Order: sequence, then structure tokens, then C-alpha cells
Amino acid sequence: MLSFARVSIIGMGLIGSSLARAIRVRMPTVRLSVSDSSADVRARVEALGLADDVCDLPATAVIDAELVILCVPVGAMGAVAAEIADDLAEGAVVTDVGSVKASVLAALTAALPAHVHVVPGHPVAGTERSGPDSGFATLFEGRWCILTPQQPGPASRQLQAFWERLGAKVELMDAAHHDRVLAVTSHLPHLIAYSIVGTASDLETVTRSEVIKYSAGGFRDFTRIAASDPVMWRDVFLTNREAVLETLGRFTEDLVALQRAIRWGEGDTLEALFTRTRAIRRSIIDEGQDTEAEDFGRPHGPPAEPADEDPR
Amino acid sequence: MLSFARVSIIGMGLIGSSLARAIRVRMPTVRLSVSDSSADVRARVEALGLADDVCDLPATAVIDAELVILCVPVGAMGAVAAEIADDLAEGAVVTDVGSVKASVLAALTAALPAHVHVVPGHPVAGTERSGPDSGFATLFEGRWCILTPQQPGPASRQLQAFWERLGAKVELMDAAHHDRVLAVTSHLPHLIAYSIVGTASDLETVTRSEVIKYSAGGFRDFTRIAASDPVMWRDVFLTNREAVLETLGRFTEDLVALQRAIRWGEGDTLEALFTRTRAIRRSIIDEGQDTEAEDFGRPHGPPAEPADEDPR
Ligand SMILES: NC(=O)c1ccc[n+]([C@@H]2O[C@H](COP(=O)([O-])OP(=O)(O)OC[C@H]3O[C@@H](n4cnc5c(N)ncnc54)[C@H](OP(=O)(O)O)[C@@H]3O)[C@@H](O)[C@H]2O)c1
Ligand SMILES: NC(=O)c1ccc[n+]([C@@H]2O[C@H](COP(=O)([O-])OP(=O)(O)OC[C@H]3O[C@@H](n4cnc5c(N)ncnc54)[C@H](OP(=O)(O)O)[C@@H]3O)[C@@H](O)[C@H]2O)c1
Repeated sequence: MLSFARVSIIGMGLIGSSLARAIRVRMPTVRLSVSDSSADVRARVEALGLADDVCDLPATAVIDAELVILCVPVGAMGAVAAEIADDLAEGAVVTDVGSVKASVLAALTAALPAHVHVVPGHPVAGTERSGPDSGFATLFEGRWCILTPQQPGPASRQLQAFWERLGAKVELMDAAHHDRVLAVTSHLPHLIAYSIVGTASDLETVTRSEVIKYSAGGFRDFTRIAASDPVMWRDVFLTNREAVLETLGRFTEDLVALQRAIRWGEGDTLEALFTRTRAIRRSIIDEGQDTEAEDFGRPHGPPAEPADEDPR
Repeated sequence: MLSFARVSIIGMGLIGSSLARAIRVRMPTVRLSVSDSSADVRARVEALGLADDVCDLPATAVIDAELVILCVPVGAMGAVAAEIADDLAEGAVVTDVGSVKASVLAALTAALPAHVHVVPGHPVAGTERSGPDSGFATLFEGRWCILTPQQPGPASRQLQAFWERLGAKVELMDAAHHDRVLAVTSHLPHLIAYSIVGTASDLETVTRSEVIKYSAGGFRDFTRIAASDPVMWRDVFLTNREAVLETLGRFTEDLVALQRAIRWGEGDTLEALFTRTRAIRRSIIDEGQDTEAEDFGRPHGPPAEPADEDPR
């Protein structure tokens, strides 16, 4: 039995459109009603046939929905919740996919009526792309989705079944703990990637063209993450400030210790750390959270012809 | 016409064995004579048929060679050069593939006789794997190889033709400049990746198992780089100390500025940086230095079955 027969998605970017595609494939009988603030995106969603109804206003899209999923940047969750508050059906479950949870839990609880069930969520899956064309139906398969309800109950159990149906594995967690965990596994890595790419494009002794040519030495890996959506990530750092600063403090401390080891030529210290860090990748592969193939399975051999000038 | 008819490779790890494979494919008439300090590796190289002669001693492998390529960690170059010095043919070209160049140039020049031509080199291509089984023939195709001869001349032109034959693009550069450029595009990224993986496995509030489960949020990208060979990377940091510390200083400065922007909630500063960093990835893809596919083309969808327990 399906947990929800009528689902509404607000925000048809990478995550919203992936959800729509996954629902189409895994729950073809669900009636899907979506909205997006951009007329272009709505037209594109119509053209791709991603939903039964594509509405101009979020409030229209949520009428009658048993499940509403907010797929907008974390900083916009409160405003979107306020826009739909009056039109939500009694007993509807309202969730989201935002990368930060404590601030979203607070914003949704404040904006929404007591007759709906707020169960914040976060699928730990994504790419560096944005928009409705970048989504795909299999994005959540084998990935974890974290739910952070204030109190677990029938609504969070239904939502868990929903995500499992899409191929995800589900874990329940306190919102504040979620934010500390993701500060380590996602927010700090993004911050550092953005930072190093900024540093590298700003040097006097090494040109930008050299940075690009020799990026296969490791740098290019960081540029993928640093190509992620600027607004989404701005909001993440603004709303998960405490946990990010705390984790960043720890990282800086460790980095300074490494710096010292290099300055004093302490080869054993370096080798010991570099040996220890190998094991964790093995575990990630064994857990099915990354590909076993070397170099992420990147194609080797002659590179593809340079892409045509992007007309956008 | 082939630039070299008899080639010798010392060290049959990832890079040495990739070179051997590439030579087999692209220059099948070359007589290839190799050596490795490990008996197991030598046996494996024999079994894989990667060379015409597999010698116990480097000095045996280089007799008569017109080109000798040292494929050992940067810190071992001087000692290996001393071992082969007496057996090199008059006029032989001696090169290497080490990730640092000024220290290798000094070590080779000091150890080798005046009747050979020293032309240090560095193919900017690799993976996180080690050993003779991890190499492949196409590793250098479309990648850059940097040569840092003290003075360009016939030897460096011959070596350039050799690398181009293997599919690489070649650039000549001053050794010190190489070390500054690679500090940015390779050494700093590795240092940071090792550091963040170390930090993440050492926290009190977030368990190691949580770090692994939710690594798809970005962290897993860093674990690939941090799974690279510990000895190779120890040597890189010990021999390129100045340039690495200088670049690290710049990075830390920029990171502290970002930290401050987060602390004071300066959303515009964050968004401006995050927007600027997008362009550089586009350039890397346009230059053929990374795949166009999202998420490096990682497979999405059901993860492969967890690997069998590795018996090693
Ligand atoms: N990308 C990832 O890897 C990832 C992973 C897990 C979770 N998330 C979370 O998923 C959510 C959506 O991210 P995404 O990657 O799907 O981003 P995206 O592709 O950029 O899509 C963002 C969506 O939010 C809408 N939006 C932006 N600002 C808005 C505002 N002020 N009011 C109303 N709608 C607004 C956009 O509307 P327009 O069409 O008008 O631009 C678009 O529909 C974010 O909360 C993010 O934290 C992302
Ligand atoms: N990996 C990369 O991505 C990459 C890219 C560009 C350049 N490089 C450079 O390529 C070189 C080789 O790296 P690799 O990735 O091929 O490493 P690898 O797979 O670990 O192979 C290292 C080789 O060096 C030998 N070796 C280690 N210590 C030695 C010593 N003290 N004396 C003599 N031989 C020794 C090893 O012998 P055993 O068989 O006995 O262990 C093995 O043959 C390094 O200088 C590295 O900086 C690496």
C-alpha cells in the first residue's frame, strides 16, 4: 500500500525534479502536483512531463496533498511554508529536503498550523548541478535519508516508508545532531573546496591557465564540489553557523599540526596520518557509499572533444 | 622514427607499470628492461608480461638503455641514481616521473656522471592506487607531462617526442616554477584531503560510522585523494616544503576570511565567492582535464554489492 496517494513538491530544481522522476517510476499511481517560482522552470517541467499538475502558486499545488515536500534553499523554507500554511489539508505531512535541519524545523513549526505534521528530512544525495534538467530518478537509491521529527510517530513512519520506496535507507535523528554530522560530512568539505578554488584562482606566482592545465594532480576534484549552487550553499552556512564553525576550528587545528610537521621535516608523523586515512575510504566503499572503481571510474584515455560553447 | 629503441624503467608501481603498458601499445618495437626492489612485484611484472627483461638490480636493467625512467618515490631518487651511475651508457637520457622537481634535479645531477643527460619529468596523471596491477596504458593520454631540464636541448626534445607518442602533451618549465605550480594544483589538495579525513575520524560528537554513512554529502570525494600512497606523499611534502608552506599560508588566510564571513552572517560575501568558483570548473572541462559528466560520471542507482571481505 502506498503511504501517500497525493503528493506535492514545491521547487523543481535538482532535488525536486529527481523526486518527481523517482515517484513517477516507483509509485506511478501517485497524483503529483508541483510548483516552482520560475515560469521557465514550470514550462520545462510541463515539457518533461514530470507532474500531473504544474501550478503557478505553491498554495494551489498543496491543496488536497497528503504529503508536501519543500525543495527550496534552506533560507527560503520559512517563507514558502508561510505561503502554503492556509491551504494545507488537515493532517497533511509536511517535509523538506534541506541540507540543514534545526533551522528548518524551527521555521516550519513557526509558520505552519497545528493540524499538519511537520517531519523535516534530508536525503544525503546530490550532484553539483541545478535545475529541473539535472535531476534523475535513481538519485536516492542506496543513499541515506535522514528524518528529524520533533517526535517520531505515525507521520514519520509513513514518510520513512515513502523514502524507502524510492530506494533510500532511512535514519531518524535529532535535528541538532544532524547538523553536527553534516557539518563534518558535507558542509566543511564544501567550505574547504570553495576556499581552495578561490585561493588557486587568485595567486600571483601561478597563473590561472597553469592551474587549469595541471588540475589533474588533485585540484580538479575540488572544483566539482566548488561548482555547486551558490545560493543553496550560502544558506547552509548562514543557517548551520555554530556547527560549521566548531568543525572548522577542529580542522584548522589539525591542519596547523600538519603544517608544523612539514616545517620540521617530521616524515614519520606525515606517513602515520597518511596511512591512517586510507582505511576510511575502504569502509565507505564497503558500505556502498562510493564506487569501487579507481579515480571514481572517470574515463581514462583520450579526453572527450571540448564541449561546444554553451550558448546560455 | 622512435626517439629511443631501448628503454629502462626502475620501479614498477602505478606509474612505472602504466609507462610499460603504454610503451607496449604505442611503441611495440622498443626493448623494455625493468627492475623493482620487490621480488613479488618482479614476479607479477613477469606474469603480466610487461617487459622484455625483468632484472633484480637496477644497475642490470639500465645497461645499454638509451632512456632510463626512474619511477620511485621522490625521496628515493638520489639513492637509485647512485646505484645505476656506473652502469649507464654514454649519452643515455635519464629522466624520472617524480611529483617534485627541484630536489630531484639536484639529486640526479649530484649522483650521475657528466656523460649522461639528466632531464627530470612529471606526468600530471595518476590515481589513488599503487603497485603494478593498478597501472593502465591510457593513463597519460590527454594529460600534461612537464619536463624541467636545466637547459633545453636535443635530449629534452627527444624526451618530449617520447611522451607525445604516449599521448601526453608536453610543457617545459623551470624546476622551481614546477614546484610552485604543483604545490597549488596537487600538493595542497592532497594535504587538505589528508587533513580533513584525519579530523573527521577523530571527533567526539560524531561517530566514525556516521561519517561513513553520510559521506555522499561531499566528504567521500576527499577520501579518494586521502587514500593515495603514504610514502610517496610523505616524500612530496618533505621535498617541496617551501612552496607547500607558502601556498598553505595563502589558503589558511583565505579560509579565515571565510570563517569570519560565516561568523558575521555575511551572505553576500559567501555567495560572491561561491559564484566565482564555478567558472574554473567550466574551464577545466573545456580544456579536457576532467569529465563533463555530473558527479565525475559516478554510477547512480543501486550500489554494487558490498565487496567481499578483503583477505589481505
Ligand atoms: N544539491 C544537492 O546536492 C542537495 C542534496 C541534498 C539536499 N539539497 C537541498 O535541496 C534543496 C534544493 O536544492 P537543489 O539542489 O534542488 O537546488 P536547485 O536545483 O538550485 O533548485 C532550487 C529550487 O528552489 C527554488 N527557490 C530558490 N530560491 C527560492 C525562494 N527564495 N523562494 C522560493 N523558491 C526558491 C528554485 O526556484 P527557481 O526555479 O525559481 O530558481 C528551485 O526550484 C536545498 O534546500 C538543498 O539544501 C541539495
Ligand atoms: N600516483 C600518482 O598519482 C603519481 C602521479 C605522478 C607522479 N607520481 C610519482 O611517481 C613516482 C612513483 O609513484 P607510484 O604512484 O608509481 O607509486 P607506487 O605504485 O607506490 O610505486 C612505487 C615504486 O617505487 C619503489 N620504491 C619505493 N621505495 C623505494 C626505495 N626506497 N628504493 C627503491 N625503490 C623504491 C616501489 O618498489 P616496491 O615494488 O619494492 O614497493 C615501487 O616500484 C613517485 O615519485 C611519485 O611522486 C605519482
